[in-house]
Amino acid sequence: MTVSTTQARLRVAVIGAGYWGPNLARNFTASAFWDLVAICDLDADRAQGVADRVGGDVAVYSDVAAVLARPDIDAVAIATPARTHHALVLLALRAGKHVLVEKPLADNRDHGAEMVQEAAERGLVLMADHTYCYTPAVLKIRELIAAGSLGEILFIDSVRINLGLVQPDVDVFWDLAPHDLSIIDFVLPGGLRPEAVSAQGADPLGAGKACIGYLTIPLQNGAIAHVHVNWLSPTKIRQMVIGGTERTLVWDDLNPQQRLSVYDRGVDLTQQSIDGADAAASLVSYRLGDTWSPALPEHEALGAMVSEFAASIREGRAPRTDGEAGLRVLAVLEAASRSLTDHGLMSPVQSNIHGASTDADLVEVGR
Amino acid sequence: MTVSTTQARLRVAVIGAGYWGPNLARNFTASAFWDLVAICDLDADRAQGVADRVGGDVAVYSDVAAVLARPDIDAVAIATPARTHHALVLLALRAGKHVLVEKPLADNRDHGAEMVQEAAERGLVLMADHTYCYTPAVLKIRELIAAGSLGEILFIDSVRINLGLVQPDVDVFWDLAPHDLSIIDFVLPGGLRPEAVSAQGADPLGAGKACIGYLTIPLQNGAIAHVHVNWLSPTKIRQMVIGGTERTLVWDDLNPQQRLSVYDRGVDLTQQSIDGADAAASLVSYRLGDTWSPALPEHEALGAMVSEFAASIREGRAPRTDGEAGLRVLAVLEAASRSLTDHGLMSPVQSNIHGASTDADLVEVGR
Amino acid sequence: MTVSTTQARLRVAVIGAGYWGPNLARNFTASAFWDLVAICDLDADRAQGVADRVGGDVAVYSDVAAVLARPDIDAVAIATPARTHHALVLLALRAGKHVLVEKPLADNRDHGAEMVQEAAERGLVLMADHTYCYTPAVLKIRELIAAGSLGEILFIDSVRINLGLVQPDVDVFWDLAPHDLSIIDFVLPGGLRPEAVSAQGADPLGAGKACIGYLTIPLQNGAIAHVHVNWLSPTKIRQMVIGGTERTLVWDDLNPQQRLSVYDRGVDLTQQSIDGADAAASLVSYRLGDTWSPALPEHEALGAMVSEFAASIREGRAPRTDGEAGLRVLAVLEAASRSLTDHGLMSPVQSNIHGASTDADLVEVGR
Amino acid sequence: MTVSTTQARLRVAVIGAGYWGPNLARNFTASAFWDLVAICDLDADRAQGVADRVGGDVAVYSDVAAVLARPDIDAVAIATPARTHHALVLLALRAGKHVLVEKPLADNRDHGAEMVQEAAERGLVLMADHTYCYTPAVLKIRELIAAGSLGEILFIDSVRINLGLVQPDVDVFWDLAPHDLSIIDFVLPGGLRPEAVSAQGADPLGAGKACIGYLTIPLQNGAIAHVHVNWLSPTKIRQMVIGGTERTLVWDDLNPQQRLSVYDRGVDLTQQSIDGADAAASLVSYRLGDTWSPALPEHEALGAMVSEFAASIREGRAPRTDGEAGLRVLAVLEAASRSLTDHGLMSPVQSNIHGASTDADLVEVGR
Repeated sequence: MTVSTTQARLRVAVIGAGYWGPNLARNFTASAFWDLVAICDLDADRAQGVADRVGGDVAVYSDVAAVLARPDIDAVAIATPARTHHALVLLALRAGKHVLVEKPLADNRDHGAEMVQEAAERGLVLMADHTYCYTPAVLKIRELIAAGSLGEILFIDSVRINLGLVQPDVDVFWDLAPHDLSIIDFVLPGGLRPEAVSAQGADPLGAGKACIGYLTIPLQNGAIAHVHVNWLSPTKIRQMVIGGTERTLVWDDLNPQQRLSVYDRGVDLTQQSIDGADAAASLVSYRLGDTWSPALPEHEALGAMVSEFAASIREGRAPRTDGEAGLRVLAVLEAASRSLTDHGLMSPVQSNIHGASTDADLVEVGR
Repeated sequence: MTVSTTQARLRVAVIGAGYWGPNLARNFTASAFWDLVAICDLDADRAQGVADRVGGDVAVYSDVAAVLARPDIDAVAIATPARTHHALVLLALRAGKHVLVEKPLADNRDHGAEMVQEAAERGLVLMADHTYCYTPAVLKIRELIAAGSLGEILFIDSVRINLGLVQPDVDVFWDLAPHDLSIIDFVLPGGLRPEAVSAQGADPLGAGKACIGYLTIPLQNGAIAHVHVNWLSPTKIRQMVIGGTERTLVWDDLNPQQRLSVYDRGVDLTQQSIDGADAAASLVSYRLGDTWSPALPEHEALGAMVSEFAASIREGRAPRTDGEAGLRVLAVLEAASRSLTDHGLMSPVQSNIHGASTDADLVEVGR
Repeated sequence: MTVSTTQARLRVAVIGAGYWGPNLARNFTASAFWDLVAICDLDADRAQGVADRVGGDVAVYSDVAAVLARPDIDAVAIATPARTHHALVLLALRAGKHVLVEKPLADNRDHGAEMVQEAAERGLVLMADHTYCYTPAVLKIRELIAAGSLGEILFIDSVRINLGLVQPDVDVFWDLAPHDLSIIDFVLPGGLRPEAVSAQGADPLGAGKACIGYLTIPLQNGAIAHVHVNWLSPTKIRQMVIGGTERTLVWDDLNPQQRLSVYDRGVDLTQQSIDGADAAASLVSYRLGDTWSPALPEHEALGAMVSEFAASIREGRAPRTDGEAGLRVLAVLEAASRSLTDHGLMSPVQSNIHGASTDADLVEVGR
Repeated sequence: MTVSTTQARLRVAVIGAGYWGPNLARNFTASAFWDLVAICDLDADRAQGVADRVGGDVAVYSDVAAVLARPDIDAVAIATPARTHHALVLLALRAGKHVLVEKPLADNRDHGAEMVQEAAERGLVLMADHTYCYTPAVLKIRELIAAGSLGEILFIDSVRINLGLVQPDVDVFWDLAPHDLSIIDFVLPGGLRPEAVSAQGADPLGAGKACIGYLTIPLQNGAIAHVHVNWLSPTKIRQMVIGGTERTLVWDDLNPQQRLSVYDRGVDLTQQSIDGADAAASLVSYRLGDTWSPALPEHEALGAMVSEFAASIREGRAPRTDGEAGLRVLAVLEAASRSLTDHGLMSPVQSNIHGASTDADLVEVGR
């Protein structure tokens, strides 16, 4: 992520001035790698309000075409409702802009695939705003797993529950699970590529959509991931347990004094043939070792994310949370929705077009 | 549970002197309603050890037939492995003894049903040792739900995870979920009578059985129960959240300073017709009221349980956790095992013979 | 605190644009009762930076005399180092301005007394910025105590420890204890008026001042308050326990899910004469009742504080945290410093000039 | 603590069958190093009850002289009220018995000193039952400090509060602080040898003795220890923070999942001469490193304690918690009582007779 600041800054426009857009605008403004040059919203007053708050010389638009027509703009960040992502992203890519898009990448997998395809063909960066992946905790988890500290992953259990806003257009899976799924995708060495998933949900209030959701994701080698999302819980829990053959990690996001705990604790199993007669019995033993809580640097995730967006553009490479990652999350969500309809029947997850994302198609951004 | 202690005490034998038998023996000894007169184990030394520890005048046997042949014994408490329950309980009932049996009631539902049938025909008490149901916390939960404090039940989420003994003969569902299921059965006004359940599990260590399990139980009116059991978690969690239309209760069994919290917090939904055009839209509102943590009396669950066993015998009524309750738990476990084999497919749960348990068949125990 | 917003707003200047000034500026700007018209700092650039961030039409000054000379300004808020409070506040009062001053009120009690005196004589509001007193938690504590929910206060134990900045000019008592003392003063019905205090401290790092401090404050009727402040603790604790004859309250400021807990638990003592001989023996009994956690409204303390400043001016009354309150805190701190020098010897606390603060001297602010 | 079990076991009598005696009896019975041969209580029935419960061949006495007259008894463990320790221990020592005595060692320091003197002259072991010192947590703390993991000790803050029994004969200092003091004495390399202490207390209920207590203990080199004991707190806290120049340790005894946390966090101070003029200014810097929680073995403290009692007798050496340790605790308590009377005035602590305890006087126990 080291980019010489002697280079000219990249120029970005934020599309959408609702809930998330102002956060993006603020972070682009604060970044050494970006100049925020425009904010666009159908409601020009709202866009103006954001422009006023971030200060500086930011143009305001209510017409996205006008933004995209500006040749001096390198990239756009899209923070509009998910159902509009597909059309807006394609417009932006076709105008030659690199694109950062709020999660979820699109409102369905086919839309997402088309966006990824378009970006690849044009050699442009398409980045998913999987903000959590840039938090110090998740970056550390990814690093620990990559370094083999946990050993082989055995299970991932993620709970994200709170008294939450019942969303008008999406169910609890599409609202909350993108966080869990994008994190799991980010920390698993090969990304999240299950063959099938099973989802169970409930709508006990009659809200017309699942307000409570459970998602089961069989992983490779008999491992399993499970996600519990819930809008109706009076207590707030945001906890992920990642069990490995060597160690187990617990991430409690609501405990600022000890977010990550790494337990050198677990069950060891040794297969052993016994007496010739009993072909194989398991010897179970337990490790009860120390617990370790790594210190985490303090930085705002969104700041690290816009830095990575800039770096990926300059270096002509896929960002850490690229369109393919967004697509993998969409594929799981879509399969989950089908499974939900089928009462929890395992539903196949469509694999990405390209398999692993490649940087080959990306051309160097000359400036 | 008030029984005049001027009545002669009931006389009981404990069968099985392994892990659980000594606890039963100790509680029968301490009870005002019971005389522990015999302990039986295939290993007579082990039985003798327990007899020594509880003191008093307790006979020791290694032959269960000899115990059952004693006409002065009113009841037996069976604390042997689950696969032996069926044969032992039938023997005891046919010898005219009331029976208390450790959880799970039997190793499969058919066996359990036969035991319940036998007890009913003979007018004898068959009680499931669902110990948790007699803890102050669970008794209070039952009381609160019965009094309508939570309103209609919307969801139940139960987590019981810890670094646990990988059992040689049963998977994590049969080992741990009987606790959750018996508790849910106990606190739900009509008992736990789902039509079908779905189970997902994993055996990432290759132990030959599920070590991680997720159980989804659709309840009436769109409500849902979910149970997470896990032998591989480095942290211990025993928490149940019960969400209702009026209030939500959280039971954190590992927090002795505040086991129960009742939250006057939740989501309210009002259906409303709007403009004639849009037939019905939902108005969502949130309550953020006080939290209340009821004081709980301190008593040992097992002591309350043996009192209830005595009371049910004297009063000729079904105990609070009768054979039917044990059978309902077995039916869910059996359906879960089938669902597990079917990759989480909803599996129908066999309903009990009698539907709701009735006391009608029980004859008054004369003494 | 209800002030008709049809009245013209009051006009305020903020003096000091360092750490705290910008927070005051932001809250005056957001208030319905105030117009922020000026910001003053010796470093005019810094003042300008704050003015830019809050937006609107705010004049910038580096000369405080120029601010005070403006007849259109009703009040000033002083957020400069404590050693400058005395001179600045006297200047402002003599210029006829109402004054809000950051904690501690002054750098010693005599200075504070002179400021209080001056304000009283001029019929102007002098308010101490005891911000914590305007948090929802502390307002609720005050309300509960006033309503008698806790009964008579028996003890107050306050802990405020964290790895903290070793301040260049003050010790840990003067840095942190003003929070605890102002809160205790605020919630005790008669305010904090001890006769003497004892302080113990330590400077184990050789920083030249106490980094760890313990303050003991005997209260009326045998009650006691104790404050533990510490810059060297690796864990952060902000907890106050207030024990009463009826109930005991625990405020855990770092637990956003349950900041306040009210325990209906305690020890009851009954004096009883026994046998004529033994004049009086105590019968001790214990209550183990429910715990209750009141829901707290969400509002920013500083917002409530500036509202109260406005209301006190308009209504010509002392604000809730008036100069007298600030003076009582100073008196305790000063006595604590003396006791610290005297190895913990009880040091008398000088009482306020007026005893209980009275509103009599305040003239109605006409506008 | 390794004693060959091929040696004959030592023979012990327990004096006192009240609250603590049965625990001692149970642990002597379970020990490989001891035979419990007698239990003595003024109430012979109570003694018999304990004898019945521990089983085996245990004689029961109501007359302590009869116990001490038995030549086959090597040692006695005294669990009677503190006011009786002095007389009983002297009797036992004069009868040639090694003695273990419940905390506090005696009801005043002079009594304790006489006991220590007597034991030393007779070459017998006098051991204080400072049970907490044998818990896995405290043993680990001692080990960490001895190994220099914390660096130089800067402060110790100990809190032990709960709704507790108001004792008839002692105040909260004498009831609870022996725990804290014996632990601090055990973990500090040189033991707890302050020159003076200050105590503050309150009796807001009028119980006739302090129910709330604060104890300040200046340590060497500007360090400080502080103890807060309280019978009136509705919440239970047992926490000790030990801050050092290198690391800081937090022991939370009520968190079984993470009792010990070692923080590599702290404040570093560098003295620096600046400009020649300003002789020395401090540069403050902060370390924010990892946290580490060592795994603790699981064993019962009392079991380890009776092993140490046996080992010290066999090896003719002072036990880890010898009479001198008990005496140091008494000296602090006695000074605290004086300080309490003097409103917190620093009260000198009498030093032990021998200074550091020496093993020289102990003769090898031949058997």
